Amino acid sequence: MAATSKSDYVVGVDLGGTKILAGVFDGATRCVSRSKMTTKAERGAAGVIGRIVRCVQDAVDECDLTLKQVKAVGIGSPGSVDSEAGRVVFAGNLGWNNIPLRKELERRLGLPVVIENDCNICIIGVHQEEFAAKPRNMVGLFVGTGIGGGLILNGKLFSGAAGMAGELGHMVIDVNGPKCTCGNRGCVEALSSRTAIFRRIQDEVKRGDKTILTEMLGDALEGLRSGDLRKALKRGDKMVTNVIEDAAHYIGVAVGNLVNIFNPELVVVGGGVMEQMAEAMMPIITETAMEGAFNGTTRGLRILPSKLGDDAGITGAAVLARRLSK
Amino acid sequence: MAATSKSDYVVGVDLGGTKILAGVFDGATRCVSRSKMTTKAERGAAGVIGRIVRCVQDAVDECDLTLKQVKAVGIGSPGSVDSEAGRVVFAGNLGWNNIPLRKELERRLGLPVVIENDCNICIIGVHQEEFAAKPRNMVGLFVGTGIGGGLILNGKLFSGAAGMAGELGHMVIDVNGPKCTCGNRGCVEALSSRTAIFRRIQDEVKRGDKTILTEMLGDALEGLRSGDLRKALKRGDKMVTNVIEDAAHYIGVAVGNLVNIFNPELVVVGGGVMEQMAEAMMPIITETAMEGAFNGTTRGLRILPSKLGDDAGITGAAVLARRLSK
Repeated sequence: MAATSKSDYVVGVDLGGTKILAGVFDGATRCVSRSKMTTKAERGAAGVIGRIVRCVQDAVDECDLTLKQVKAVGIGSPGSVDSEAGRVVFAGNLGWNNIPLRKELERRLGLPVVIENDCNICIIGVHQEEFAAKPRNMVGLFVGTGIGGGLILNGKLFSGAAGMAGELGHMVIDVNGPKCTCGNRGCVEALSSRTAIFRRIQDEVKRGDKTILTEMLGDALEGLRSGDLRKALKRGDKMVTNVIEDAAHYIGVAVGNLVNIFNPELVVVGGGVMEQMAEAMMPIITETAMEGAFNGTTRGLRILPSKLGDDAGITGAAVLARRLSK
Repeated sequence: MAATSKSDYVVGVDLGGTKILAGVFDGATRCVSRSKMTTKAERGAAGVIGRIVRCVQDAVDECDLTLKQVKAVGIGSPGSVDSEAGRVVFAGNLGWNNIPLRKELERRLGLPVVIENDCNICIIGVHQEEFAAKPRNMVGLFVGTGIGGGLILNGKLFSGAAGMAGELGHMVIDVNGPKCTCGNRGCVEALSSRTAIFRRIQDEVKRGDKTILTEMLGDALEGLRSGDLRKALKRGDKMVTNVIEDAAHYIGVAVGNLVNIFNPELVVVGGGVMEQMAEAMMPIITETAMEGAFNGTTRGLRILPSKLGDDAGITGAAVLARRLSK
């Protein structure tokens, strides 16, 4: 354990549609323990909140602390979050509508809680801990089950009129493209998220295209994960390579758009898909974005993968909890 | 003439690829006179700067003032503008590279000059004069020969790391769409600018499609202007109606993207094309954008045409000149 005061800890929580991650962070924002739990969204908001509480307790217990030694808890939730009111206004993948998440957690944990959108905590984590809060204008694209985004503008989180800014995954880049869960066609999420990549691979297998994934997992590709794609890439699998290169190309188009819109110093591409496949995807993303970017916007521009991976969320949530406790 | 002090005037200039507009504004930012001149970009930077000076002198003379009674001049230039250094870094449609516009104008006019990107002066004009500087987060899309954009975020002009933010016309929304002058495919500019609309009409005429425009202007559609399209719309011309509705649909997709990205209170759609055809286009733009916008971003959202039209640029340039003179 880190040599910080016994009561200088905060907890960061990343609430997702399928899993809950909690991490205990010391005074230097180092993660000293973590825990993970399935979300079980089907049990409803009360059930999920109970699991968040247990996940926090587990992480705190794991590093031999008690809740009394924790100063504050930060949590990122999917969907539309009203941080000031402490409410999750709407979260489709949880089936939540207007859930008073902060109040419920504060009551059950006996600690101050701050809530924020899940992509916003990721960009805060990456900005603060991976880049020492230096970039003044930075855009984050997080590629996982869906694609989310976060914006640091003029050195601060930009969240728009109602805390909903940064839905970068629902930028339409192919107006005649595949249908997205949001109802639009050709959102970058519908083209390059893990879900989109898996669906395209499954479609191509059904059409009879060959891939070593079927040798690894059977024709139904049961239990397919990003890590399997990485293995297939390493073994030179042609179909998977094509699909991943296309997905990277579309992310590159989206990044090019974002560069033209924001003229940022830094674009960070993170999330689980990138954690597994940054090596194959980043060169294509960067080349496509640089081609798409307008004359004058690329001087000094950096386009980088995030190294925080899945820890970006809990780290950013801990940063917010720390700010709250000061 | 307005009842302000004889020396409380500023001049706003909008430098475009085809024309220069200059307006004299009184202490209440009312336009008291204006002048217009062709740009003649083919004469090179020195020639164009000479014409800007004459255009300013004409506007000042028109309202019986002299340059000595003017406090400052603001000017918007196309392309990449470094306001701090007072230079136009790059302007493709003028053929300019690194032109010290501010220094040259200050020398020749004997007045302090402020320069800014042409779309940025438009958004400043619209924000300050049309909406009394009230919207905290506002996005402007200006549809003319090309499509430009401007961003007011947290109450201020957002111009990014190198003053290049807001190139909203070069957002790709149809990755397999028509080629844009910038090299990309399917930028909204390549789909919905006046240039794109005219090209599509000309293509359809060549293919033998019928339109009353050929009755009005001949088969070559010589001298086609936005005003002609408005007339054709009013007369129920089917081909023009289709083209304009498609263009409006694409603008709506772009506005939907911008709503998802920025979660603004207000999106303003301005420029010459809108000035002529807002009535036909705005309902489609708004409907498409609202459909594309993510759950939670549309509460309280307004999508409006700008009433300033072609005066947005000179008005915003005058606002900047006023700030400089204070």
